This record gives sequence, C-alpha cells and structure tokens, in this order.
Amino acid sequence: MKGTRAPVDLPHATRLLNHGPVTIVTSAHGGRSNVMAAAWAMPLDFDPPKVAVVIDSRTLTRQLVDASGVFGLQIPDRAFAQQTLEVGSNAGVEFDKFAALNLQTFQGQKIDVPMLTGCVAWLECKVIPDDSQRYDLFLAEVVAAYADSDVYSDNRWHFGDDPNARTVHYVAGGTFFTTGEAFEVKSRPLENGRRDA
Amino acid sequence: MKGTRAPVDLPHATRLLNHGPVTIVTSAHGGRSNVMAAAWAMPLDFDPPKVAVVIDSRTLTRQLVDASGVFGLQIPDRAFAQQTLEVGSNAGVEFDKFAALNLQTFQGQKIDVPMLTGCVAWLECKVIPDDSQRYDLFLAEVVAAYADSDVYSDNRWHFGDDPNARTVHYVAGGTFFTTGEAFEVKSRPLENGRRDA
Repeated sequence: MKGTRAPVDLPHATRLLNHGPVTIVTSAHGGRSNVMAAAWAMPLDFDPPKVAVVIDSRTLTRQLVDASGVFGLQIPDRAFAQQTLEVGSNAGVEFDKFAALNLQTFQGQKIDVPMLTGCVAWLECKVIPDDSQRYDLFLAEVVAAYADSDVYSDNRWHFGDDPNARTVHYVAGGTFFTTGEAFEVKSRPLENGRRDA
Repeated sequence: MKGTRAPVDLPHATRLLNHGPVTIVTSAHGGRSNVMAAAWAMPLDFDPPKVAVVIDSRTLTRQLVDASGVFGLQIPDRAFAQQTLEVGSNAGVEFDKFAALNLQTFQGQKIDVPMLTGCVAWLECKVIPDDSQRYDLFLAEVVAAYADSDVYSDNRWHFGDDPNARTVHYVAGGTFFTTGEAFEVKSRPLENGRRDA
C-alpha cells in the first residue's frame, strides 16, 4: 500500500470484490487469531452490503469465526501474492501464521479482529446465520470498508502501470492472474428493455 | 471461440470459475427461455462440484430457474463483452434477448437449457434447495462442464496474446477488467505447516 486507508461508502463496498479478486480472511476469538486465503468470496447484496465466503469446516479460521461471528476480509495486491499463497497453504492450528510470516496488523474498526497491513482493501464482516453453513458457505454483512487511496477512490479501482500494485485472481497450485487492462462497453438498450434482467 | 468444446473433468470444473470471471446465466421452462449476466458467481465445492450464484428475485431468470431447478452458467471472453453487458442491462420479461441480440445457442448435455455459443466455458447446473435463496443466493451442483480447447485444456487456462480471447471481470457501469498476466508463486511450507489452513 502506498496511499492512505480511505473509507469506502458501505453501499459501494461490494464493488471492492465485484471483479473477483482473491481475498484473505482474518479471524480472532478468545486470545487466538488466524489468517487464511479465500479465493471463493463474492458480493451478495449492495445495501446493506453483504458477502458470501467459503470457509472450510476443517480450518482454525472456521472455529474462530463460528465462535466470534465476525471476520475480516482483505484484498491483497500482487506484491502480497507470496504471503497470500503462504497463508492459504499452511495451517494456523499449530502455530501463529502472523508471527511466522511477519505479518503486520491493525485493529478492526467495528469488529474485534486483526486486519492485515499490506493489503489494498478491507471489509469488516458480521456473519448472518444461515443453513448454507453446512456447505461451508458463510453469508455476512459488511459493517466497515476502506481501501488504499492510491488504487481505489471515488468508488472505483484505478490501477496504474505497476503490476505489483494490482489485485490478483487465484487459479490453482500457486498460479495467479494479475487483474488486467480495464475497458469500457456501452450498453445499447434493447427495444422495451428494462434494467431488471 | 476458436477451438472445440472439450469436456472438463467434473472434479476440476470449479477451476473454470476460480479466478472470478463474469458469467452468463441461461435458463428455460415451459417454452420460455432467458439469458442474463451474473458477476456474482463462485465455486462452492470441488467434488461433486458446486457453485453459488446470485440471481435477483425480480428477474425472469429467477422465475425460470425456480420452475426448472436448472441453469446454464457460461464464461464469456472479451470478444463477447458487449453481449455480456447487454444481456445484463436489459430484461427478458418483455422480449426475447436471444433473438434481439442474435445469440446462438446449443442444447445442454444434461439439462434442458440453451447454452450460449460464443463463450469459452460452460457449466450445466442443478439447483440445491437451500434457505439462502431468500438472499437470492442459489447453490447448485455442476453436472456437466466443457471449455474452449483453444484457451483451456489439461485443467488450466492458457490465454495467449489476443486480449479478446481472455476472460473478463466485471466492475460496474460497463467497465470490465481483462484477465491479466499469469504468474506463479512457490509456497514455502512453514514449520509444522499443514495443508488445511
């Protein structure tokens, strides 16, 4: 991160996730905390903003989120890809990944969870109980959001030439795609067209 | 699409979606059919493969999926971005988007739904009833999957230099990101590290 952590209007918070970047989940309860990668995260609603995130039942993160009802969701840039892979490839059950990977954190604004320094966007989330948890799918309301002003402002991403300052999309086996070139398409309303497709 | 529609092993089917591309949902029931864009779609499980997709309750697509229990999920490339935006910006309630946009289709292999020619990957999906539908979130099992052999084979995406043959990620207001450069990160197992993060 090069800019400042600037607040993002909650009704626009899901835009941080709309393009499908990989995310990192932080969690804490009863003196323990953990951090793991989550490629399976997406928006669910605009206002109040909601997200859906898959959190495997076998993880320490799951234990902590089940107990606390909250989690931090952060979006890394390419410069943070090594750490992203490592927090996704190692288990937090046996040791402290924050210390092992020398990860810096700051305290969440609305939730009692460490948020990761070095990412470019952050969403603080409160779990909504739902039976889809039996599929390891967590629905959550976003209660605070902010982003690196150097790459996100006025409710839009504006990446520059530095590939390391772009968000990334996880494929598998340590392979990522960098978020590529932006382009714009003009919609042509069809005859009788309405906005609710 | 330039290659052939090649089958994708079902346990690898979610890899088509793992990097968070925009998708297009097709649906049909009782002689009606429809097509709409869905940026909010992601994998939910590997084997059997499952996906989660947000389908707004106000849409014709929702009526058709509620009635039929199945939908087609396809991944467009950049060459198909104009059509992607248009199927997402116009309603199917009042007219036939397939005809209005001159979209070509072929019949699904396992489901009775038209699948879109001109995309680069396809997942045929059966809805799993779940109470998260009250949040417009549909969980579904993938029952067939295939992809354009020119950009996807051996269970991986291999985009070339042509930006129009890459998948795209939706932002908002007609803006997309092209899927960018691939890069690889080597995971370093931490001391006592295990694979279940």
